[in-house]
Amino acid sequence: MNAKIAVLAGDGVGREIVPEAVKVLKVVAERHGHTFEFIPGNVGGHAIDKVGVPLPAETLAIAKHSDAVLLGAVGGPKWEGLEYSLRPERALLGLREQLGLYANLRPAKLYPMLADASTLRRDVIEGIDMLVIRELTGGIYFGKPKGIEPLPGGGERGFNTEVYTTEEIRRIAVVAFDAARKRRKKVTSVDKANVLESSELWRRVVTDVHRGYPDVALSHIYVDNCAMQLVRNPRQFDVLLCNNIFGDILSDEAAMLTGSIGMLPSASVGAKVGLFEPIHGSAPDIAGKNIANPIATIASAAMMLSYAFQLDKEAAAIEQAIVKTLELGFRTKDIHAEGMQLVGTVEMGDAIVRNL
Amino acid sequence: MNAKIAVLAGDGVGREIVPEAVKVLKVVAERHGHTFEFIPGNVGGHAIDKVGVPLPAETLAIAKHSDAVLLGAVGGPKWEGLEYSLRPERALLGLREQLGLYANLRPAKLYPMLADASTLRRDVIEGIDMLVIRELTGGIYFGKPKGIEPLPGGGERGFNTEVYTTEEIRRIAVVAFDAARKRRKKVTSVDKANVLESSELWRRVVTDVHRGYPDVALSHIYVDNCAMQLVRNPRQFDVLLCNNIFGDILSDEAAMLTGSIGMLPSASVGAKVGLFEPIHGSAPDIAGKNIANPIATIASAAMMLSYAFQLDKEAAAIEQAIVKTLELGFRTKDIHAEGMQLVGTVEMGDAIVRNL
Ligand SMILES: CC(C)[C@H](C(=O)O)[C@@H](O)C(=O)O
Ligand SMILES: CC(C)[C@H](C(=O)O)[C@@H](O)C(=O)O
Repeated sequence: MNAKIAVLAGDGVGREIVPEAVKVLKVVAERHGHTFEFIPGNVGGHAIDKVGVPLPAETLAIAKHSDAVLLGAVGGPKWEGLEYSLRPERALLGLREQLGLYANLRPAKLYPMLADASTLRRDVIEGIDMLVIRELTGGIYFGKPKGIEPLPGGGERGFNTEVYTTEEIRRIAVVAFDAARKRRKKVTSVDKANVLESSELWRRVVTDVHRGYPDVALSHIYVDNCAMQLVRNPRQFDVLLCNNIFGDILSDEAAMLTGSIGMLPSASVGAKVGLFEPIHGSAPDIAGKNIANPIATIASAAMMLSYAFQLDKEAAAIEQAIVKTLELGFRTKDIHAEGMQLVGTVEMGDAIVRNL
Repeated sequence: MNAKIAVLAGDGVGREIVPEAVKVLKVVAERHGHTFEFIPGNVGGHAIDKVGVPLPAETLAIAKHSDAVLLGAVGGPKWEGLEYSLRPERALLGLREQLGLYANLRPAKLYPMLADASTLRRDVIEGIDMLVIRELTGGIYFGKPKGIEPLPGGGERGFNTEVYTTEEIRRIAVVAFDAARKRRKKVTSVDKANVLESSELWRRVVTDVHRGYPDVALSHIYVDNCAMQLVRNPRQFDVLLCNNIFGDILSDEAAMLTGSIGMLPSASVGAKVGLFEPIHGSAPDIAGKNIANPIATIASAAMMLSYAFQLDKEAAAIEQAIVKTLELGFRTKDIHAEGMQLVGTVEMGDAIVRNL
């Protein structure tokens, strides 16, 4: 097949790990007779430095006219003095909104040979394999009214609106149930229906959508209890369905359970063009040193092949190459352990290519 | 001293653990020459069954005219079919609002002899001792407008308002900085200022209040990163300052890190009368069997002595009795381990009284 891939490396380690994923994609294309065209674009702090805004119109156009977007990471101390509305992170929110990426898929899976990197006991963590599905274009992230306004008597008032419509909930629930069908057939929907009306509607609509999936088990859990249960017994979860803000919090918690966030990919899909990126940030402290772990980004490229291009075989090949490389003992610094071979970003990319 | 204590046992295990705390308080009163008057009130499902509402006016009056409230737990399957606005949990929200309990204090501390109950590795968890301070009468829990309304084109729209004023943030920040002064002098304020205007104001006001506390270190953390860091390295935290919903989620996560939520107390303070309760729920599955761990409630009674009555010596005596009882090997089922002596709710209360 032919595909145009927008490549938005962004900031910090993004600039080092994205090229490794591109390297892997090129080899896969060659081997399997595909043609991938890679179109670079500026995003985040890098874009601020070049054109003054975190998400330039040109970058958005590149993304919109591509078949999929591969993103590295954005942000860094250099841009932290800026007003919030002009910061690198805003590029992510802009891309999500403009590309209609309402479904964020974040697998939290343990690579067995890395179980010791987890802060959880091995018997608790071994075998965890869940998929957090986070609503990504609604809720309190985008709800209006919002703002900061002066109060008549002095002081100010900061406010945001958590809001979901039946249709917004329906479509993300469909994503969750469809995903569960290909997995262990279990959806746990997260809400705070005992306090929030927006959650009450969420629970009602998710329950409705479930009627079309009699083969999938559905349960509901309050967000506070879910934060607990993830620590207590993470293996109980298969698909975790969350709104935008709860998904932001719980997917990060779930990721950290595995102990190696340098390993975890994500996919954001919805309208037409999907976006694929590692869940970790730009890690400015280790940027530019050939230290960063490129695996999360390479695994994100694998998700791209599968979700955007239906190239499941090719995606599986990348995933197997990652596992094989780890089995051979290659480790970047973040996942290094005694007896293993410490390698840099580029060398890890090379090793994965060799094991393809 | 003389004090009137409202005793709201509530539902499930609440009815068994609260009497144990009262038993301990009576002995403390006797030994130290205080007079505690205990005034029982109906709350939660129990109140629904008796008078049709989770927080009867009479109960509220008892609470308002007391010097402190000791609460067990509310809720259970029996009342889960009710409309959300009539459920047992609503009593908690009502008490918080009506008593002006804007500050919720939840210590998450590890009892060293129970380190094995944690799902985290001993080296990660040992020595954790943090205090989550959660704003309890504002934010999305109480913000207006809120509701569920039909949409013109069909379907519905559920919405809530996250809102904080300068004054609401200021007073909870003061609680956090004051608490930090008596501890390790470190406040970590949680927000999502990169996305939410309400958080932007939160961060600004907390930073302002900090000017009056040059001896306390302040740092800010995004809520998603905080959920991660609690798993990665919980010992880094001393006082964690959160808004209502973030505090709900993170305090439960923090509690579960210790592995023994049957041990953890809480205090809710603000206007005049404080409320003290275990952080765990009504656990209907084990209710009525003399199995439940009364320690969280007994420790809540200790917090009452210290926060409501400034009886720090008496509070310390209870805490020491708890530690001694654990050291002697007494364990309820939830914290039982090989070689320890398994006891019931009443026997654990008795043992703590003996060790006072
Ligand atoms: C950077 C931030 C705006 C973003 C979010 O909150 O969605 C990030 O935390 C994420 O999860 O992708
Ligand atoms: C029961 C519920 C309303 C309550 C809350 O969300 O505040 C509980 O989770 C708590 O933390 O005390």
